[in-house]
Amino acid sequence: MVIFMIKAAVLGATGYAGIELVRLLTNHPEVSIEILGSQSFAGKPISDVYQSFRHILEKECTEVDLDEAAKCDIAFTALPHGASKEVIPALIEKGLKVIDLSGDYRYDDAAVYEEWYGEKHSSPELLKESVYGLPELHRERIKKARLIGNPGCYTTCSILGTAPLLANKIAETKNIIVDAKSGVTGAGRTTSLPYSFCECTENSKAYKVATHRHTSEIEQELSNIAGEPIILSFTPHLIPQKRGILSTIYVNLNRASSTEELVELYKEYYKDEFFVRVKNVGELPETKHVAGSNFVDIGITYDKRLQRAVVVSVIDNIVKGAAGQAVQNMNLLFGLDERTGLNNPGFYL
Amino acid sequence: MVIFMIKAAVLGATGYAGIELVRLLTNHPEVSIEILGSQSFAGKPISDVYQSFRHILEKECTEVDLDEAAKCDIAFTALPHGASKEVIPALIEKGLKVIDLSGDYRYDDAAVYEEWYGEKHSSPELLKESVYGLPELHRERIKKARLIGNPGCYTTCSILGTAPLLANKIAETKNIIVDAKSGVTGAGRTTSLPYSFCECTENSKAYKVATHRHTSEIEQELSNIAGEPIILSFTPHLIPQKRGILSTIYVNLNRASSTEELVELYKEYYKDEFFVRVKNVGELPETKHVAGSNFVDIGITYDKRLQRAVVVSVIDNIVKGAAGQAVQNMNLLFGLDERTGLNNPGFYL
Amino acid sequence: MVIFMIKAAVLGATGYAGIELVRLLTNHPEVSIEILGSQSFAGKPISDVYQSFRHILEKECTEVDLDEAAKCDIAFTALPHGASKEVIPALIEKGLKVIDLSGDYRYDDAAVYEEWYGEKHSSPELLKESVYGLPELHRERIKKARLIGNPGCYTTCSILGTAPLLANKIAETKNIIVDAKSGVTGAGRTTSLPYSFCECTENSKAYKVATHRHTSEIEQELSNIAGEPIILSFTPHLIPQKRGILSTIYVNLNRASSTEELVELYKEYYKDEFFVRVKNVGELPETKHVAGSNFVDIGITYDKRLQRAVVVSVIDNIVKGAAGQAVQNMNLLFGLDERTGLNNPGFYL
Amino acid sequence: MVIFMIKAAVLGATGYAGIELVRLLTNHPEVSIEILGSQSFAGKPISDVYQSFRHILEKECTEVDLDEAAKCDIAFTALPHGASKEVIPALIEKGLKVIDLSGDYRYDDAAVYEEWYGEKHSSPELLKESVYGLPELHRERIKKARLIGNPGCYTTCSILGTAPLLANKIAETKNIIVDAKSGVTGAGRTTSLPYSFCECTENSKAYKVATHRHTSEIEQELSNIAGEPIILSFTPHLIPQKRGILSTIYVNLNRASSTEELVELYKEYYKDEFFVRVKNVGELPETKHVAGSNFVDIGITYDKRLQRAVVVSVIDNIVKGAAGQAVQNMNLLFGLDERTGLNNPGFYL
Repeated sequence: MVIFMIKAAVLGATGYAGIELVRLLTNHPEVSIEILGSQSFAGKPISDVYQSFRHILEKECTEVDLDEAAKCDIAFTALPHGASKEVIPALIEKGLKVIDLSGDYRYDDAAVYEEWYGEKHSSPELLKESVYGLPELHRERIKKARLIGNPGCYTTCSILGTAPLLANKIAETKNIIVDAKSGVTGAGRTTSLPYSFCECTENSKAYKVATHRHTSEIEQELSNIAGEPIILSFTPHLIPQKRGILSTIYVNLNRASSTEELVELYKEYYKDEFFVRVKNVGELPETKHVAGSNFVDIGITYDKRLQRAVVVSVIDNIVKGAAGQAVQNMNLLFGLDERTGLNNPGFYL
Repeated sequence: MVIFMIKAAVLGATGYAGIELVRLLTNHPEVSIEILGSQSFAGKPISDVYQSFRHILEKECTEVDLDEAAKCDIAFTALPHGASKEVIPALIEKGLKVIDLSGDYRYDDAAVYEEWYGEKHSSPELLKESVYGLPELHRERIKKARLIGNPGCYTTCSILGTAPLLANKIAETKNIIVDAKSGVTGAGRTTSLPYSFCECTENSKAYKVATHRHTSEIEQELSNIAGEPIILSFTPHLIPQKRGILSTIYVNLNRASSTEELVELYKEYYKDEFFVRVKNVGELPETKHVAGSNFVDIGITYDKRLQRAVVVSVIDNIVKGAAGQAVQNMNLLFGLDERTGLNNPGFYL
Repeated sequence: MVIFMIKAAVLGATGYAGIELVRLLTNHPEVSIEILGSQSFAGKPISDVYQSFRHILEKECTEVDLDEAAKCDIAFTALPHGASKEVIPALIEKGLKVIDLSGDYRYDDAAVYEEWYGEKHSSPELLKESVYGLPELHRERIKKARLIGNPGCYTTCSILGTAPLLANKIAETKNIIVDAKSGVTGAGRTTSLPYSFCECTENSKAYKVATHRHTSEIEQELSNIAGEPIILSFTPHLIPQKRGILSTIYVNLNRASSTEELVELYKEYYKDEFFVRVKNVGELPETKHVAGSNFVDIGITYDKRLQRAVVVSVIDNIVKGAAGQAVQNMNLLFGLDERTGLNNPGFYL
Repeated sequence: MVIFMIKAAVLGATGYAGIELVRLLTNHPEVSIEILGSQSFAGKPISDVYQSFRHILEKECTEVDLDEAAKCDIAFTALPHGASKEVIPALIEKGLKVIDLSGDYRYDDAAVYEEWYGEKHSSPELLKESVYGLPELHRERIKKARLIGNPGCYTTCSILGTAPLLANKIAETKNIIVDAKSGVTGAGRTTSLPYSFCECTENSKAYKVATHRHTSEIEQELSNIAGEPIILSFTPHLIPQKRGILSTIYVNLNRASSTEELVELYKEYYKDEFFVRVKNVGELPETKHVAGSNFVDIGITYDKRLQRAVVVSVIDNIVKGAAGQAVQNMNLLFGLDERTGLNNPGFYL
């Protein structure tokens, strides 16, 4: 029996999303990491940059070399904003599958990209071809894609928390509000003062109120589900923990309901989804339930006084919100069981 | 010149609100702490329970003795829920002013208390007399009160963040949503497992969705300002820090506006309030801006796409949300400058 | 081909060491978890107690039933102090291998146990038979054991950090000092006030100075290596993080040396040990290098002015200091590759 | 009655030591802050840099102007290393008292400075005149000084923890070991990656083993007390909290003793010191006992097995270890009660 190993390149391997991807791939039984691309650490073993990898993976980081990359089956691009666009068309041309963790290939419509990112898209034809990599919504298209725009962290959490209400036509599409709280890894491996320990710990804040780019991604996907344009409030917050996003979602309903009915509706909607766990009536999710794992946990409460659903949805921002979702997409691309390498409870502690 | 010192009794001195009150009162130039009431630690010096007080205040804790208390001018009651109601009528009868930190004397209407607290009120006539101790709204009545119901932490933050929009009749009264995040001191000095370090750190969660008692307090005060009944969504969250509440408040407006106009409106509304600091256009508050101090910091953003105000309001839950507000109320009761003992920046670090 | 799966019982599955063991065993390809013993949660699925396990392991917890246990190949006992002694002799008699995570079977000499634990040992003959489960020192004996006393967390870290100096006869055996810092999971799943979030965070302290029981374990093993009785200072500290122990070890040398020589000596001593990683000259270990993994990382500095080695040794207290080491021991007991189920980098973030 | 207000300049006001000094001085009844020197934020109000100061102190930061400074009575220099040396001689010449928070004026002997700082001292005559600003050891000389070298954070904690044993001739001067743990504010307001939230939280490490500059300061002061040269091990560690240093100090004794005797000896030695609090037998200090205050708390344990004292000493590194000690020194310089502006319990929570 010949074992086929997927040859993978991780470009941007030393950022936080990149190294999480490396962590997950070293635990993946069907993947061989061939390339660790890193501008800043080229020539250094990954295990010098993250000493946790000593004895596990001591491979050297390299600058991106397209000819080397051509030997791989797949490339994950976890590059700084803007850098993806330059390398991805060449990778596609070389015949690789590409999963891009940036915001560049997530949009149906280049105009939306240009509005929220403030610049023209450099490869609109690839944008058209690319598939939004949220398996719970686009599984079949993902399987056949060449290029996947891996969703943002806030968006994964918020879209999956809202989708069942819209799909079941029980939601009013006006007045949807998403109040999201994120751990600090969401900002990446940064040396900026606001992310220093003494400034972050024992502190919380909102930021980019009414202007965060993930708003447009959430609106795109929810509009598709609703079959009508949805615009909504999305407010990101920074809270003093490393991992985790918690989205609290407020949705007015178009008729009276109950917590029991809503929980049932969510369980039905996600009944075939391994990575979505709907809480029972009376339970609420916590970010530590999903830390280190690829799960989305969702709790629903009906507020009778207001005929409003209050949904709480949690993920680990660098797993289901980035690296884990990328692995899930890779599994789909290569016909593997979607759970391969992701079938674990993460770390509660 | 004779210096008049206010003789104070702190009942429930060893809980977190209690000890914060003791901290503030030891820095207050016009107060002498006469009684440190503590059921659990009677007979022990306060400086054994909180060793930070060694060399500063080494007074012994005692069980509540009404005859002793009668020698005081004021009693602060920071007792476990239910305990206040038993001792407060007797204290009032002895001629003391009372500032109660529990939920027992915050309501205009005993029926609201009974609905949210699930029990009959034992002294409805005192409830009628008591004044809701939010100086920014009720300063003149507070000055003349005998009994003050010191507001809850979430409520102080949320009411002050919303009031100017309602007072100026620019808010729609439907669809107000308050999404609040609190540090763990809000749960008090507790040994319950969910508040242990390993369960709390690196974790966030919502709790008591659509059922938290502070909802009714917020609704009472905002209804009074609006001149019509307001019901709203209030969702409390627990985040991994000690001090701080951040409320994100969503209010639809009844006409188009701008961030500039809204900031101006808030600055005008609070122009005489020392303890309310309205952020400039483009600034947002953070909990570390108010840690350890009695300030409320408020930032306002107008979301043009949705004709909606998004207000972020922060306090230190055990200062402006409990002990500091109690001192502010005491200052009013005794004709002192409201800032006495509170005129400091807290601790950013 | 018949795959032999090791049938395992985890007694005390819902404590922190227990649940970490469950986490590791669910990732172990050769183990089937048959029993999750839990006094407190009998009748409840483990995935209700730790919701991170939903969709992964939803097995019910049960009270200990020796007849059920008899169907297993191995029992891990992670029970409260004292409880182990009652159940272990019966398990051994039923033919199971037992790995005990308590302090009951770690001593060569019952008298030492009795001195430090303050009570008579109830099964001294089993104590005599049991093997101290530190594979790096006792691998061959472990392979043939029926009962393994899995080492304490502080002790694993401190013994492995010191052993090479004693084995190479370069250490003076007087004046050895071990100053150790531990994360809060070391205290277990406890509701005691000092371990509450608000008391622990932003705080550090020493405890049990000169009296901690792990002192005697460290002394036993180091004395065996040195071939002479060693007594030393061991000081445990609590620091505000969940996982991790860092031991700083001071050892006077009996001759001049250099950092280069000492690093070389450690690398040689541990050259066949997968789970021990000796840092290069100029590198120092950090607890995040080993969080979630079974590694011990050791950094060595020579202080020329004092002819003294300063060794820094780190582990994850609930992995190499408890559950991971137990799995490593199990692998040895059943003839598996020692790394099975443990061959990963943990989580730096 | 004319009230004399001390006119103070804080040079380097926007670093962490600087802003803590500003916090303490705004609470000081006898000081008027005249100058907030800041290279990076000149032209900006301090309350824009630290928004906690809004409504309290909104003074503008300025570049250092010696003519302006000349109008002050005292300058605190909390400047980056090297910058102090350039401005201090000029300030002294203008007639100001100077308290320098850098390492430049702490040494009796320029050669020691040059050995540990690796450069020649630029004003050795001022170094000779300057007084080491540890009031508990040098109070009388401080009162008459023009220039004070304010001690380092680690050193204050470690010297005061060890002094009584040496002064009482009960210590062996060989084999003294100081193992110190510091919060992250000790690194100052830095954007360096290792001090980012995600790298620091849930992590501990040792650094600069056997080479940290504070070693030489500790040795200088302890040698003076002992009347003989002392060299010792000093190991600094970084732990995940903002404030606090905890030093664990190991000292062999030259005769048998007891915890009771040692505690008594410490209490006697510090009997007139307000800011030193010696714990009772059986008590140990914690960093939260001193957070935000100017106290040093010391706990002593005698290890009978080893005839060794284990002393645990804690301070708040930016108060007693920097800004608070500077205020204490200022009080002495100007004939004020040493406790003025510092007479408070800090913040346990």
